[in-house]
Amino acid sequence: MPDRSFLEWSLTIQQRMEQVLDGFLPGADIAPQRLHQAMRYAVLGGGKRVRALLAHAAAELSGADAALAERAASAVELIHAYSLVHDDMPCMDDDDLRRGKPSCHKQYDDATALLVGDALQTLAFQLLAEPGLGLAPEQQLQMVQLLAVASGSRGMAGGQAIDLQSVGQALTQTELEYMHIHKTGALIRAAALLGVYSAAVVDPLRVKAVSRYAEAIGLAFQVVDDILDAEADTATLGKTAGKDADSNKPTYVTILGLPRARALAKELHDEAISALQHEGAGATRLRQLAQFITQRSF
Amino acid sequence: MPDRSFLEWSLTIQQRMEQVLDGFLPGADIAPQRLHQAMRYAVLGGGKRVRALLAHAAAELSGADAALAERAASAVELIHAYSLVHDDMPCMDDDDLRRGKPSCHKQYDDATALLVGDALQTLAFQLLAEPGLGLAPEQQLQMVQLLAVASGSRGMAGGQAIDLQSVGQALTQTELEYMHIHKTGALIRAAALLGVYSAAVVDPLRVKAVSRYAEAIGLAFQVVDDILDAEADTATLGKTAGKDADSNKPTYVTILGLPRARALAKELHDEAISALQHEGAGATRLRQLAQFITQRSF
Repeated sequence: MPDRSFLEWSLTIQQRMEQVLDGFLPGADIAPQRLHQAMRYAVLGGGKRVRALLAHAAAELSGADAALAERAASAVELIHAYSLVHDDMPCMDDDDLRRGKPSCHKQYDDATALLVGDALQTLAFQLLAEPGLGLAPEQQLQMVQLLAVASGSRGMAGGQAIDLQSVGQALTQTELEYMHIHKTGALIRAAALLGVYSAAVVDPLRVKAVSRYAEAIGLAFQVVDDILDAEADTATLGKTAGKDADSNKPTYVTILGLPRARALAKELHDEAISALQHEGAGATRLRQLAQFITQRSF
Repeated sequence: MPDRSFLEWSLTIQQRMEQVLDGFLPGADIAPQRLHQAMRYAVLGGGKRVRALLAHAAAELSGADAALAERAASAVELIHAYSLVHDDMPCMDDDDLRRGKPSCHKQYDDATALLVGDALQTLAFQLLAEPGLGLAPEQQLQMVQLLAVASGSRGMAGGQAIDLQSVGQALTQTELEYMHIHKTGALIRAAALLGVYSAAVVDPLRVKAVSRYAEAIGLAFQVVDDILDAEADTATLGKTAGKDADSNKPTYVTILGLPRARALAKELHDEAISALQHEGAGATRLRQLAQFITQRSF
């Protein structure tokens, strides 16, 4: 069990992120109202905000300003939210539920969901390019670049394309890993690194350590997801469970079996911790997050 | 008729843009291949590249480097291409043809088209955030910001949302204008302004003049589009003509009738020219473009 102070810390950030995202999203009364309502529906009120927690933990390690960490975390959460909205659409995973609520295209309609995803992506880059934040402009540009590379055709969107092609295929563990490194790993790595880049001074050795940490955590996250998906039922997970198995998508559990998948999650956790060995107490939240991600069972 | 030197200039730029975009897009042999092939299919080999021409003409006026003008023009063309791919999808306009070829989702599939649009948008911002271009980083950030605002929920994507809501509605000319200012006008304005911002020195008065010019041209572009759509048939236009009238979408022609729509196009042309009155011979290409856009009949 993660300790009590970690749970308090993450709850505080989750609640704060809700306010911050609320402030960054256009108001529901601003035209076009339906689009803005749907954008807010897709982003607010839910999710574990794992990416925001990672950004904040890495920002704490780096001594970043809270406001800058919140902005970086918001940009990543907006990209994540856009990818979920598009991923749930009928032409992709065709999921009716998301976080226990109707997914965006079910609550609104397909065309609106398409535009919601498009506009959330744009807003993410807009946030990072805002002038006068008190960061060096070249560092802000690096953040835009980092987020773009992580979410584009050679990052997250590319991973989704590989995922599409893999339905019904018998993938090896290496091929599955390659897909997840892109589909979820790239954005998780970007979340942590944007936390580091939110600070006035960026230490290249720290960038390396956090990058290695986040790569391990990103894969662990997916392995645990597959384990949870294999175990859970619709009621507890809040999304249509067993979906991946139904649609013949390869998972760590179908390839490795449950016991070996659990061992792999543990291994990746240890790898993440070892990447932070030269960081001191400032990395406590990152270490706790590694544990939280690999041990979460809710 | 636009003069011969203008036609040569635009042909040169159209051809050069083909090479430049080809270089910016990931190769068709790079994984995920199908996604990269589809991205190239959606961007390369066609279009009048009006936005690229506007960016180049404004860059010439401002004395910008060719390489920077090409990059800015590419970013705008990628945003435009992404919007067309998503706009053609079954849940939006459901168009089977684009530039005389099967639209992206017909040539590939809906899921791939969704990801193509997503990844093209990302690539646009990635291009503008590239380090070491020789522009001041704060100016590059302004370019990212400008493109994001123009294409997001209060720009292009917002205009598309308004368009969705307007099907079957009896719009006034003011409401129609409001929609087009967002749907096409914002990106056309961004194209011209990114041309100005590609130069080492940005003159605020020039930004104002080019902005006013581009706002007029953006609307003119749409008025002419509606006129052409009303006149043309599928064979000459390369897209399913009469579609807007079929689906009961309001157009300038349905609201004003052909003669008054033509007069409006002329009026907007004159407004664009008058916005440039304090610019000298450097604005020749912009003036010619205004004429080209309002008089194009192919």
